[in-house]
Amino acid sequence: MTRIHDDPEDFADDQFAGWLGLYADRIRGVHGGAVSLRTDGAAPQVAVVIGGGSGHYPAFCGTVGPGFATGAVVGNVFTSPSAAQAYSVAKAADQGRGVVFSFGNYAGDTMNFGLAAERLRAEGIDTRIVVVTDDIASAEDETKRRGIAGDFSVFKALGAAAAEGLDLDEVERIGNACNHATRTLGVAFSGCTMPGAHEPLFTVPEGHLGLGLGIHGEPGIEDVPMLRARDLADLFVDRLLADRPANAGTRVAPILNGLGDTKYEELFLLWGRIAARLADAGIDTVEPEVGEIVTSLDMGGCSLTLQWLDDELERLWRADAYTPAYRKVAAPVGALVPSTAEQTADGEATAPDATDAARRAARTARAVLAAMHDLLREQEETLGRIDAVAGDGDHGRGMLKGIGAAVQRVDRIGQEGGVAFVLGRAGDAWAEYAGGTSGVLWGAALESFGRALGDDSDEYTAQDVADAAAAFAEAIVHLGGAKRGDKTLLDALLPFVDELQQRVGRGEDLPTAWTGAAAIATREAEATSDLRPRVGRARPLAEKSVGTPDAGATSMGMILTVIGAVLSARADSTAAATPEGMNA
Amino acid sequence: MTRIHDDPEDFADDQFAGWLGLYADRIRGVHGGAVSLRTDGAAPQVAVVIGGGSGHYPAFCGTVGPGFATGAVVGNVFTSPSAAQAYSVAKAADQGRGVVFSFGNYAGDTMNFGLAAERLRAEGIDTRIVVVTDDIASAEDETKRRGIAGDFSVFKALGAAAAEGLDLDEVERIGNACNHATRTLGVAFSGCTMPGAHEPLFTVPEGHLGLGLGIHGEPGIEDVPMLRARDLADLFVDRLLADRPANAGTRVAPILNGLGDTKYEELFLLWGRIAARLADAGIDTVEPEVGEIVTSLDMGGCSLTLQWLDDELERLWRADAYTPAYRKVAAPVGALVPSTAEQTADGEATAPDATDAARRAARTARAVLAAMHDLLREQEETLGRIDAVAGDGDHGRGMLKGIGAAVQRVDRIGQEGGVAFVLGRAGDAWAEYAGGTSGVLWGAALESFGRALGDDSDEYTAQDVADAAAAFAEAIVHLGGAKRGDKTLLDALLPFVDELQQRVGRGEDLPTAWTGAAAIATREAEATSDLRPRVGRARPLAEKSVGTPDAGATSMGMILTVIGAVLSARADSTAAATPEGMNA
Repeated sequence: MTRIHDDPEDFADDQFAGWLGLYADRIRGVHGGAVSLRTDGAAPQVAVVIGGGSGHYPAFCGTVGPGFATGAVVGNVFTSPSAAQAYSVAKAADQGRGVVFSFGNYAGDTMNFGLAAERLRAEGIDTRIVVVTDDIASAEDETKRRGIAGDFSVFKALGAAAAEGLDLDEVERIGNACNHATRTLGVAFSGCTMPGAHEPLFTVPEGHLGLGLGIHGEPGIEDVPMLRARDLADLFVDRLLADRPANAGTRVAPILNGLGDTKYEELFLLWGRIAARLADAGIDTVEPEVGEIVTSLDMGGCSLTLQWLDDELERLWRADAYTPAYRKVAAPVGALVPSTAEQTADGEATAPDATDAARRAARTARAVLAAMHDLLREQEETLGRIDAVAGDGDHGRGMLKGIGAAVQRVDRIGQEGGVAFVLGRAGDAWAEYAGGTSGVLWGAALESFGRALGDDSDEYTAQDVADAAAAFAEAIVHLGGAKRGDKTLLDALLPFVDELQQRVGRGEDLPTAWTGAAAIATREAEATSDLRPRVGRARPLAEKSVGTPDAGATSMGMILTVIGAVLSARADSTAAATPEGMNA
Repeated sequence: MTRIHDDPEDFADDQFAGWLGLYADRIRGVHGGAVSLRTDGAAPQVAVVIGGGSGHYPAFCGTVGPGFATGAVVGNVFTSPSAAQAYSVAKAADQGRGVVFSFGNYAGDTMNFGLAAERLRAEGIDTRIVVVTDDIASAEDETKRRGIAGDFSVFKALGAAAAEGLDLDEVERIGNACNHATRTLGVAFSGCTMPGAHEPLFTVPEGHLGLGLGIHGEPGIEDVPMLRARDLADLFVDRLLADRPANAGTRVAPILNGLGDTKYEELFLLWGRIAARLADAGIDTVEPEVGEIVTSLDMGGCSLTLQWLDDELERLWRADAYTPAYRKVAAPVGALVPSTAEQTADGEATAPDATDAARRAARTARAVLAAMHDLLREQEETLGRIDAVAGDGDHGRGMLKGIGAAVQRVDRIGQEGGVAFVLGRAGDAWAEYAGGTSGVLWGAALESFGRALGDDSDEYTAQDVADAAAAFAEAIVHLGGAKRGDKTLLDALLPFVDELQQRVGRGEDLPTAWTGAAAIATREAEATSDLRPRVGRARPLAEKSVGTPDAGATSMGMILTVIGAVLSARADSTAAATPEGMNA
């Protein structure tokens, strides 16, 4: 939603004034738009004047500068500028070698830039028009297609050609050649909201994407069920390869463009899938651009553009440019100086010797880890929600990442090793991959639990396990520096450890004692609702957290309960199996 | 909402793999993160290793490169990387001159980077830690504050200091000095959604903003009613000036940061307000950064950072850097070569002579324009909604902008001139400021209507007005190239013109004839629902548009109806006034 404005009617003018102030060292505002300051002493060049409505930043004014556009005409939000604006900017941009207007293929732009061109020609300024028509979803006939993110490709080619000093005929020829070589397909996930409006311009049905988005809030041509990233990459690549221009070579300059609400990490992820598909198809990618290039306010969606390169277009694509939003210079990096770092091996140490009892205990540990994995997969979102009330919302995700890594590591070492070895590897993996506070604490605690048991006993008593649980807690106290009442996982864990010790001391069997102690942990976790946090990341939001339990204490209660269930089930099955003489 | 992913659990790894592929020419992936390739032949420098969770791009890996960070440790989404990851990246980044770790002040990061630093020191690699604590909303005590967008300021200072070849003590000193000089305040408008989750981590109540946002989906410290841009600028500037560090000078390096869903145009608009406030306070801004610097997935919100500069910090802030997401080089622009463009004057020509009748008709024209302005203000959103079904949603906005400009221009020329002069100026202004297809058409049509009437008649008959309406329509047909049935405003306008001619030919008075013809226009506008567009911007979405009327025809019907009401009301008041001998 577009939320920052004063009078919404003035949005386009107000934002442009702010932008002009920001780049006053390199841009001059003129009636109707902006022109680049000229490099001191530079020879005159063909003026490349681009434009269209506002709401598409960095398009269009963000790419005014040496090596790119000479000027940009700035219309209202999603609205063509007027003919008078286009005329005014072109007059200011003209350096005596003629003007090329370039814009996406929309009726309003065609009409207004066309009228401006007539007026300029009447005054003796040779003016050409290069219309961008890259959107393959918008029409079968290439000349009737809309211009979307391919605007960037064509404007870049025009700007680089003009910067090389080419004449008007040549710059126009190159612009048209680039447009012919450039194809885009886009999808929309959600609509954008105009400044001052309360509803988006359009919506995409839940769980769907709109195929063939426009960049003015136009909905897609067709709504299709939402795709995973791999399938979306296939869709883009398949359709664009099917629509490649005649005489296409094997090199492309790709743009993976985010429309505003679809963020960088998502684009990088999708790019990884697309790059693999293009490589499989034998296509070389040249300096791909992945990011927000032609946006549509806060619209959700993305598009893939492929510009099919020949030597000329490749030279222009690679050329330097320096504009407010796009800066490209020969990268100041050279050969890598080899690092002396040893890479951390993911391979495993050989398991040390272990007694049969330690191996049996290791099997129990594996079963516990598997049950924790199931639990945390189910509870991820709930835990994240609890954590988000006054924290950073990462708890569910971090715990799931930790247990996932632990289970994977343990699976990889096969059936080797005793309980100390298995829990040590699980702890290493948890700390390594979960990250965050809980990651390092859980990792260290699991390792301590295993170390307390060791792999050399012939029997593990309930008291041994209770002592290992105490070692588990001690590791967290030592490393985290918190104490009871600080609204952390210790508020569930420490009462659990006390209760487990007492019950085992009274002679209860381990499953019964553990289950009883876990109930205390669950109760104490709930009681953290009344507390204010004293350490840890939740500190700045202490007040907000009152009324919500601590996420770490909550997950601790859940996990201890599940472990109780696993211990009980294994005890039952061992009891049932023992008469037949089977090993547990 | 975060929508692009395969297995959500692998989101952070998958996006990082895609990113590494994209920048393989300058970045090397290592276990746990990324390091910059070294410039060929460059002298060894202190390694600056930054990091934190994923989901903040360009933070953190986007700023790895010459002049900025040497390496970045990449954790899971909103989750600290592990100690082993931090260790691994530091080992790869180390060039024999020691390591500075820098990260925002969160318990998980402090713990994991701290453990890694211990291990590095144990191996003889001198390692320092610079914690960023810029968020003034998070705590009174400066040392307990969270790190948010000020991360960028501190990392930039560290990177530039290291690139200058300074030693470890100096780089550490500068990092801490920069942190002390850097203060941020943020606001949240809406929460972000974790990959795979269906609900945002938090929500801000409708019509409010969360003051003191975090960058991990933490909600604000306090919810306050939503502010206009001017008031938001005041809030930021007032609170940051009140919290300026002791010994602050008068120069600041500002960052106005968008969190993900708050887009560039909004930030530029807000920047304009902030820059004015800072200038009023006598503060010089040095190379401000306005854009997405430290994001939080698709969160809505923004923050203002002020780094209070001394000469040293200013030198480091201005220094070149070349990273995937941030490229700064001495701008290749020099003095402006003055343009020969005449600026379009907003001043008005003197009104030519006009008859009394033409002046009376001009008063009617003014009343009509005022009524149209009221109408279009009311109907802006409705018209935008209709247009968005199969178009670009700009119709209501464009019409309002056009009529607003027309009324303003006509107001400025005072009570001078006849109807042709007034409608000519109104048409000029409409075409100039509305932009878009409808802007140029409406502008030309109004001018034609006035020209058909002229300013030299002693009487304007109903037939004269009907002929002027025909000239209005003819201008649109000529310029737009459409015909009846193409689903444009002509489908309402042409039947109106025919009906008006017939009724006037039958001797009806103008208000009656106009009102009757406007009813036909309204009916025909509704009937465009059944049509498929054949020309204009809606073309690619022909199928979607069936079932919805054309927005231009709809507004034409509305406007013609309102004009009928104005004509009727003026005729009544003239009839009532005439017996007393007053002029209309």
